[in-house]
Amino acid sequence: MLKLSTSDPGFAAAFDALVGARREADADVARDVRTIVAAVRDEGDAALAAYTQRFDGHDLNDTGWRIERADCLAAYQGLSEELRDALDLAATRIAAYHAKQIPEDRDETDASGVRFGARWRPVDAAGVYVPGGRAAYPSSVLMNALPAKAAGVERLVMVTPTPKGEINPLVLAAAHVAGVDEIWRVGGAQAIAALAYGTARIGAVDVVTGPGNAWVAEAKRQLYGVVGIDMVAGPSEIVVVADGDNDAQWIAADLLSQSEHDPTSQSILITDSATLATAVADAVDLMIGTLSTKAVARAAWDANGAIIVTATLDEAIPLVNALAPEHLELACDADVAQGLFDRVRHAGSVFLGRHTPEAVGDYVAGPNHVLPTGRRARFSSGLSVLDFMKRTSFIACDADALAAIGPAAVALAEAEGLPAHAKSVALRLTR
Amino acid sequence: MLKLSTSDPGFAAAFDALVGARREADADVARDVRTIVAAVRDEGDAALAAYTQRFDGHDLNDTGWRIERADCLAAYQGLSEELRDALDLAATRIAAYHAKQIPEDRDETDASGVRFGARWRPVDAAGVYVPGGRAAYPSSVLMNALPAKAAGVERLVMVTPTPKGEINPLVLAAAHVAGVDEIWRVGGAQAIAALAYGTARIGAVDVVTGPGNAWVAEAKRQLYGVVGIDMVAGPSEIVVVADGDNDAQWIAADLLSQSEHDPTSQSILITDSATLATAVADAVDLMIGTLSTKAVARAAWDANGAIIVTATLDEAIPLVNALAPEHLELACDADVAQGLFDRVRHAGSVFLGRHTPEAVGDYVAGPNHVLPTGRRARFSSGLSVLDFMKRTSFIACDADALAAIGPAAVALAEAEGLPAHAKSVALRLTR
Repeated sequence: MLKLSTSDPGFAAAFDALVGARREADADVARDVRTIVAAVRDEGDAALAAYTQRFDGHDLNDTGWRIERADCLAAYQGLSEELRDALDLAATRIAAYHAKQIPEDRDETDASGVRFGARWRPVDAAGVYVPGGRAAYPSSVLMNALPAKAAGVERLVMVTPTPKGEINPLVLAAAHVAGVDEIWRVGGAQAIAALAYGTARIGAVDVVTGPGNAWVAEAKRQLYGVVGIDMVAGPSEIVVVADGDNDAQWIAADLLSQSEHDPTSQSILITDSATLATAVADAVDLMIGTLSTKAVARAAWDANGAIIVTATLDEAIPLVNALAPEHLELACDADVAQGLFDRVRHAGSVFLGRHTPEAVGDYVAGPNHVLPTGRRARFSSGLSVLDFMKRTSFIACDADALAAIGPAAVALAEAEGLPAHAKSVALRLTR
Repeated sequence: MLKLSTSDPGFAAAFDALVGARREADADVARDVRTIVAAVRDEGDAALAAYTQRFDGHDLNDTGWRIERADCLAAYQGLSEELRDALDLAATRIAAYHAKQIPEDRDETDASGVRFGARWRPVDAAGVYVPGGRAAYPSSVLMNALPAKAAGVERLVMVTPTPKGEINPLVLAAAHVAGVDEIWRVGGAQAIAALAYGTARIGAVDVVTGPGNAWVAEAKRQLYGVVGIDMVAGPSEIVVVADGDNDAQWIAADLLSQSEHDPTSQSILITDSATLATAVADAVDLMIGTLSTKAVARAAWDANGAIIVTATLDEAIPLVNALAPEHLELACDADVAQGLFDRVRHAGSVFLGRHTPEAVGDYVAGPNHVLPTGRRARFSSGLSVLDFMKRTSFIACDADALAAIGPAAVALAEAEGLPAHAKSVALRLTR
């Protein structure tokens, strides 16, 4: 864990190094992924079966290619009532939040009589990738599938690897709650390629979202353009800005809630209280030992944790904007938090006040937990219904409207050396 | 030029081949681009100077790295009054259209007392790529720069190659009208890398948009994630749906206005009138010879032109949706055009009625002319202010609100095996 103070003489350089540190895997997976993608494109289901045998250790023709909706219902019914209620509450709130993201169409006619506007429509089909193993989270199913449903996507496909044939019932229950239409037991780059190109069994989709390992991320990057994708995600991260009136235990838990995700996760506390800084560092050390995730949390905190002491809380804001964090907690009184938030330019999602731990956003608050990482909040946004919709603009002129704006189009087309452009307008200006 | 009729026995297969035909360059540029990108990242301006010498044939240290705003003003003042007025009209209309795209922020508090919402902000800096040579269009400058300005981007950078030192005054005039802040005389993959990573001279930007050749497109693809990009664009395309009451000359000019862009451009007429089909084919052949762009237009029309005769106009719509064209003209009476438009699911921009040639959308109507190509209208949209903005979501709970939704978060976190997530909520539920 890195300790810094803005009053250190070397602070600027040390902070720049923290901002610039790359935590993303440098694995040279691009070539492997190209091979896999080409094989799935050319050989379809046969390639899927072969890669599944090789990477997941089971034969799809024995274990079955699909998971049926009845299996998802059974998984849901098999949960404790508490978990069912929690999933239902989460789904209801997430669906309600995203339903309000549907953009309004435009249809206007201006003073020249030119009618123009834009119309939003859902994509026909969307695919959600759900990892196997450590990161198989039902909350991710909800956060990816429900915006697609809210957008009005008619065919929602889930792909998920089932290593050695094992299925995660929580993921199936979440698929039931989210209304996923099809589930295929394939994962990795081969699953992304199947969704992008389609195979005999699996129909192609228009957009693929969802988290995955380096192979999955690279496949999405390579297939971007063949299919729409969400932003390629890197390791998770949180910045907690906290004044001295915080309970060190609460803040320690917040920091560790990122650290426990993955050894590459980053947690940074920025505080104007040296006392809190010390108390939180101590609380983290004690709390880690109590966690079932202690090995991961310890590795992440040691490698990527940081505590930065500032002279004032205001001094935290330029640091936050430079870090452009995925998650930002402003742990102070509500009015102070709001004042700080007003000056935040770059962050994926912000958690205001002392009673808003980031984890409520992971599960139940409503806004999406798929957020830009690795400083990408400078230019990109969390997942939304917009990722599952597209806009068609339109223009309509009658003869008078074309007479008003057409001559300028002719002049510009001629200046650009595009005579057919000019002619297509000029011919119509004569009547 | 391909002639098809939906009544042909082999129509379905021939149409599928048309839909599936790839017109995008298969040039193996990825390796070259990786080399260039790495050189610019590691050596900065020295690499830019070397590549500019090699590809553009001039020494930046002699010709100058920047084009000054005064040069842009002078270029604008040097235009004919007609062209100045045309540029001004275009800019005013494009700016007005895009200003209305700015999304509204959300800030709500629900029945549980949970406050949540989303806030949109512009990116800090955007870069616009403007090609040299054939595709150096002032209209592209306006269509890329004005949405960034409308979004509120404070630093708008243009990069453009000046082969052998030559500068296109129309492009500079458009940069003046659009309010571009900085112009650098660099192009190709090296310019994209400079914008993404920054160099000693050129500050990094957050988003890069604008058309370019295969090297530019590949550089954007490789740097996606380091920087935000617009959709990678392929060859231009138009589908014209026309009834028998059209003037064959008008429709021929519309088809050729795409064909004259590039030998890879595609123009398709779909009509329920065999008479119009023949008349348009003849008109195209005659008109091509009159164009200064005849070589390109002829190559494109021969290779990628198509005329499809249908039994009814309605029959055109499923064909349109399968093609998901960049541009779609519905050349029939206004009410008929509207009825067809209501059934169009996938198109970049639609031009309704007999007096709306696609070229008015290229220049002056207002909506953006940067549109998804190559069937990407299935999942992506034209350029807009949203490409230059990002959304930060936020959540605020007080103790009561957390009491209402927190227990569900604890249950889900425990089910996912994430104890620090659970703890960060549970600790706060005690008071």
